[in-house]
Amino acid sequence: MTHTHVTAPTQFVEANGIRYAYRRFGKDAGVPLLFMQHFRGGMDHWDPTVTDGFAKGRPVILFNNAGVASSSSETPNTIDAMGEYAADFVSALGLSQVDLLGFSIGGYVAQVFTLRHPRLVRRLMLVGTGPRAGEPTQDAKVMQHATTPESGLEGFLYLFFAPSASSQAAGRAFWERRHLRKNDVDPPSSPQTMAAQIAAFTEWRHVRGERFAELKSIAQPTLVVNGSKDVMIPTINSFTLSQHIPNAQLIIYPDSGHASHFQYPDLFLLHARTFLDW
Amino acid sequence: MTHTHVTAPTQFVEANGIRYAYRRFGKDAGVPLLFMQHFRGGMDHWDPTVTDGFAKGRPVILFNNAGVASSSSETPNTIDAMGEYAADFVSALGLSQVDLLGFSIGGYVAQVFTLRHPRLVRRLMLVGTGPRAGEPTQDAKVMQHATTPESGLEGFLYLFFAPSASSQAAGRAFWERRHLRKNDVDPPSSPQTMAAQIAAFTEWRHVRGERFAELKSIAQPTLVVNGSKDVMIPTINSFTLSQHIPNAQLIIYPDSGHASHFQYPDLFLLHARTFLDW
Repeated sequence: MTHTHVTAPTQFVEANGIRYAYRRFGKDAGVPLLFMQHFRGGMDHWDPTVTDGFAKGRPVILFNNAGVASSSSETPNTIDAMGEYAADFVSALGLSQVDLLGFSIGGYVAQVFTLRHPRLVRRLMLVGTGPRAGEPTQDAKVMQHATTPESGLEGFLYLFFAPSASSQAAGRAFWERRHLRKNDVDPPSSPQTMAAQIAAFTEWRHVRGERFAELKSIAQPTLVVNGSKDVMIPTINSFTLSQHIPNAQLIIYPDSGHASHFQYPDLFLLHARTFLDW
Repeated sequence: MTHTHVTAPTQFVEANGIRYAYRRFGKDAGVPLLFMQHFRGGMDHWDPTVTDGFAKGRPVILFNNAGVASSSSETPNTIDAMGEYAADFVSALGLSQVDLLGFSIGGYVAQVFTLRHPRLVRRLMLVGTGPRAGEPTQDAKVMQHATTPESGLEGFLYLFFAPSASSQAAGRAFWERRHLRKNDVDPPSSPQTMAAQIAAFTEWRHVRGERFAELKSIAQPTLVVNGSKDVMIPTINSFTLSQHIPNAQLIIYPDSGHASHFQYPDLFLLHARTFLDW
């Protein structure tokens, strides 16, 4: 049976005493595409249209990093440590190379992973994210919505989509797709994960050495994607990433927010698959 | 016989006493794609790979605006007037709607054309360009290279491509393609055209009313494209366009300059044709 986003069973692999939850589906052969998730998110929070779309052409791997949702142990409180745990996970699967799609805080982790383990990464996609010491959000409502105990639809639409009727409608359509999987779903991430991730992205805001200089060391072909109105990680940060990563292509979608790739899944797939296969 | 960039005959149409040179090729049916050219450039200065690529799916029209190269009369000294002459030309051809691709100063004209004649424009592509009162170039060599009497290869590569070996090589490959047409070619643009275009883009640098406010009135789906290192119209201007035009998608290509669409013609065609046909 060929598995999909909805049917792929949750599997586990152990590395350094941590039991990582993951799901693998799509083609058997080819460089796998590894997804790195946003703040508080787990494997169930991707868009089935996007993951299944990629899976037509390559293996797709979703996972929960240390301490997140169905993975064991505690979430570390730095992006650097998250990158190392992700590398442990990739090694435990016996993979010699992956493509990476990092979304939001997952995009921070993907940058660190690529810088520390360059030979493990073939191509890099940075979606709704930014560089270390980028421009912080100016929107006071963001942390309020992002840290509610149960993240509901209203806060989600505020954080991930633009205010227009069409963007909000796309957000609701995504919310439906996101809940298509009914069985073998993750538990929510713990308060420990939330607190550790807040500590990690707070540390990430600080300059370390020359601002943006480390981005010059990312040699991989890179695709940077965002919506035109990201209230969480302002869109200018995507421009900054693309100006400092030597081989970066930038795509900004209209009238959309942090989750532009979930607002325009078919167009994003066309662009991203073209990027991966070019 | 199906014509191409190299074989399409130069034709003429008259409007308000001006004789406009143009070439039309590609499919007979569909909304024509009208190209608006850069400073001092004429119909021979497009990339045959790009124009013929578009021509597979739609009519393509190249033209010289008033006073440029093989068109008669004098070049006006404001972007507004250039937009009006272009509208005269479109009306003279009896076209009720076009798609526009404006490159550099041609992108300024395309913005004005769209704002003043919104019903004539279906979709808009702004390539290597910027808004009124955008960020000016900081590079003193630009005007020096751009105003030499005969624009040679060296200055051209400096102005239109990035300094890397691969970008320069792509520039030389484009230069070869650009000279494939041997017969029925344009004369160079006159010193009057150069002087008037300089006056026009100098005036374009000044704020008129609230900065960038007019961009909100561009309702057409818009694709903004540039290279990551445009020395003539700095790349940040493309980001600015995409932030202020409500329905704009932005694509920035890596390691490339003002003519990124000539550096990556196949990728640009894929992106642009997807945009036009979506």
